[in-house]
Amino acid sequence: MPKQIDHEKRREQIAEATWRVISERGMEGATVRNIAAEAGLSLGALRHYFSTQDELLMYSMKLVKERATARIQQIATGEGAPAQKITSILLELVPTNQEKLAEVEVWFAFTAYFRHKKEGYDAQHDGIYSAIRRLMDYANAEGLLEKELDMEMETEKLYALIDGLALHAYLEPQRIGGEWVEKVLREYLARLFH
Amino acid sequence: MPKQIDHEKRREQIAEATWRVISERGMEGATVRNIAAEAGLSLGALRHYFSTQDELLMYSMKLVKERATARIQQIATGEGAPAQKITSILLELVPTNQEKLAEVEVWFAFTAYFRHKKEGYDAQHDGIYSAIRRLMDYANAEGLLEKELDMEMETEKLYALIDGLALHAYLEPQRIGGEWVEKVLREYLARLFH
Repeated sequence: MPKQIDHEKRREQIAEATWRVISERGMEGATVRNIAAEAGLSLGALRHYFSTQDELLMYSMKLVKERATARIQQIATGEGAPAQKITSILLELVPTNQEKLAEVEVWFAFTAYFRHKKEGYDAQHDGIYSAIRRLMDYANAEGLLEKELDMEMETEKLYALIDGLALHAYLEPQRIGGEWVEKVLREYLARLFH
Repeated sequence: MPKQIDHEKRREQIAEATWRVISERGMEGATVRNIAAEAGLSLGALRHYFSTQDELLMYSMKLVKERATARIQQIATGEGAPAQKITSILLELVPTNQEKLAEVEVWFAFTAYFRHKKEGYDAQHDGIYSAIRRLMDYANAEGLLEKELDMEMETEKLYALIDGLALHAYLEPQRIGGEWVEKVLREYLARLFH
């Protein structure tokens, strides 16, 4: 394996170890020491890949985003009727399975952690709001929406519903499972599209 | 002032100082030292009212909840048509002004902080979900809802919309102001009630 690829692959493995640590112990447990242990590396080896804890955390968050984007891209360029594709894409944004639940867990932990740091992860620029707005415009262009809907209002409601579902699935895993999350989002969209 | 009331009043003042510290510096900044300084007390004096940091944080969260409950109780027992009262109560759960935005800020910071502690604040038992369910049942009994709606589904959607709006107002204060939050929630309820 070429050295550059090996380096990047190792950084991804460390990022995945970071997710596991956050998801089990929360952000307070996401120390460089714990992450190194989870990744099976010495502290010195870990520092070779990431020089600070914040750099490591930022990279891990970026990877969550890249993987979600890749999944969405695949659906967007694939087969299917518009309403079906839009529904599938929006389902990628809510935790319908354990992997996505871990991503939500990491997302919330990061957001709370970086909230008061100057050069932190910026929720305003995570692209979810504008992605939902583009999907709504696409739905509208395809004639799926009621005429004269306020698009800004409809985007805001859908965006709130999606992140509210994600938040509740994360905070109340006993009450809200992945199947129920999917059912609720599908029902909302079925009423919106016709 | 009787001594017992004085003690309770002082605990409330400390809880309010805690909110200000969390809202300015995040949970990382909510050290006993910073809170004592904000409350204008010595560390020793603060420890007289709260012996541990977690005890202080739990009390501050409890106070947020009590104040919201008191506001809701006042609306519930007051004048007004059912749809109007339900709307006013639900508007208490979203950040339509600076005071409520600070409460949301504290709520999210606490939730993230206590998430991985065993005896922490429990989002599942914060009562919001069941309060919304009761309001939906009341709306139904008053004939405000479409017939044969799935009440569990409608409660889940409204609960997600409310907390999603609160989350976004907290994370994106430049994009989403209090007036817009109110307008979105009113529009959603106007479509639900008829």
